[in-house]
Amino acid sequence: MTNSGTTGQATRSGTHERILAAALHLFATHGFHGTGIREIAAAADVSTSNLYHYATNKEGILLQIMERSLNRLVDGASQIATAAESPRETIEQLVRMHVITHALSRESSSVVDDLVSVLEGEARDAVVRYRDKYESYFSDAIRGGVAIGEFSVPDESAARLGLLEMASGVARWFSANGRFTAPELAEIHVTLALALLGAKKTRPRYAGGAVLELVARVWEVDVR
Amino acid sequence: MTNSGTTGQATRSGTHERILAAALHLFATHGFHGTGIREIAAAADVSTSNLYHYATNKEGILLQIMERSLNRLVDGASQIATAAESPRETIEQLVRMHVITHALSRESSSVVDDLVSVLEGEARDAVVRYRDKYESYFSDAIRGGVAIGEFSVPDESAARLGLLEMASGVARWFSANGRFTAPELAEIHVTLALALLGAKKTRPRYAGGAVLELVARVWEVDVR
Repeated sequence: MTNSGTTGQATRSGTHERILAAALHLFATHGFHGTGIREIAAAADVSTSNLYHYATNKEGILLQIMERSLNRLVDGASQIATAAESPRETIEQLVRMHVITHALSRESSSVVDDLVSVLEGEARDAVVRYRDKYESYFSDAIRGGVAIGEFSVPDESAARLGLLEMASGVARWFSANGRFTAPELAEIHVTLALALLGAKKTRPRYAGGAVLELVARVWEVDVR
Repeated sequence: MTNSGTTGQATRSGTHERILAAALHLFATHGFHGTGIREIAAAADVSTSNLYHYATNKEGILLQIMERSLNRLVDGASQIATAAESPRETIEQLVRMHVITHALSRESSSVVDDLVSVLEGEARDAVVRYRDKYESYFSDAIRGGVAIGEFSVPDESAARLGLLEMASGVARWFSANGRFTAPELAEIHVTLALALLGAKKTRPRYAGGAVLELVARVWEVDVR
């Protein structure tokens, strides 16, 4: 379980978990502005006064959801960057992780992607910092690949944004009943991402298995 | 001015225009659920009873906004498909139009992309039909390009979705004060899209000027 930057507690109680899960589902379904704090409390089966023990307001709950989601992505990206043997392998693994988690955690991915604009001040700055940190792993790998002639792009920043928008889009259209499983879709996106980055046609060792294990461990989900 | 499928009126009055513009801005800023019909009326400087002359409810206003936006995209895509001399040229022109309009009409693009889930029943079916029609121009060009060996993709459907998510993402991050103008960003995206589709390295005639004129005409915006 990841530590929360806002609460400072090492672990979350079952009540806290229920509140975050209920809020996530309501935000994803009815939007942030369409969700009331009383609805969150009711869906989590806690009293409103008990809920205020875990967050001072709706923004605080959203911040905790975003921090948890981004913490996991940064944690995973850091492990990938450490283990990968080349910029190309880093990109392949980052895309696998991004696509699989966006396919399997659609609600939290959409909330992180779409609701940043809801936050203000310090909360917003904190989320943007996390997101920038996560995106820096992609920037570094793209820059590194371009530097050694492995990648060729018209603009590194636009290529990173394009790649991330493409991969994040999976959260909008993936269906568990669709033609592909999440890992299959991840492999398709690895191919698309390498093409997008103008990667050379060489084929390095396949290291996808490590990412499937990483996602299962960090996100505590069943990857299949 | 495009015809509206719901109102059946050939042209929109100034009042109607103000209502749609006010609603668009409020939906984009506060979300659909965070916007009240009274707020829309106030922002458009009309009485609530006058507003009901143009739409029976908030969903009706959203539907009109989406239909207008998708009408323009379908109209533009149809003109492109007719004029283009190859699947590759079709894709280049479609990407130019998509990126430029998403950069210059960020609010309506975001509303169309993010709020489909708000609609229900017939209204939703109508929007999904429009969107499918628009996406079919991309599908046809990708399929045509693959058939003649011009494109090479791991999966045509995933490539189309990836390409559209990438290009639509421009509406989320484009800034008029950024490093690129909308047409410059469109050219970068043409390069990224062709790479994504595994296009051959040959360079056909540049036909971008026609799309800039098309966008200026259909969207009634100043393209620069």
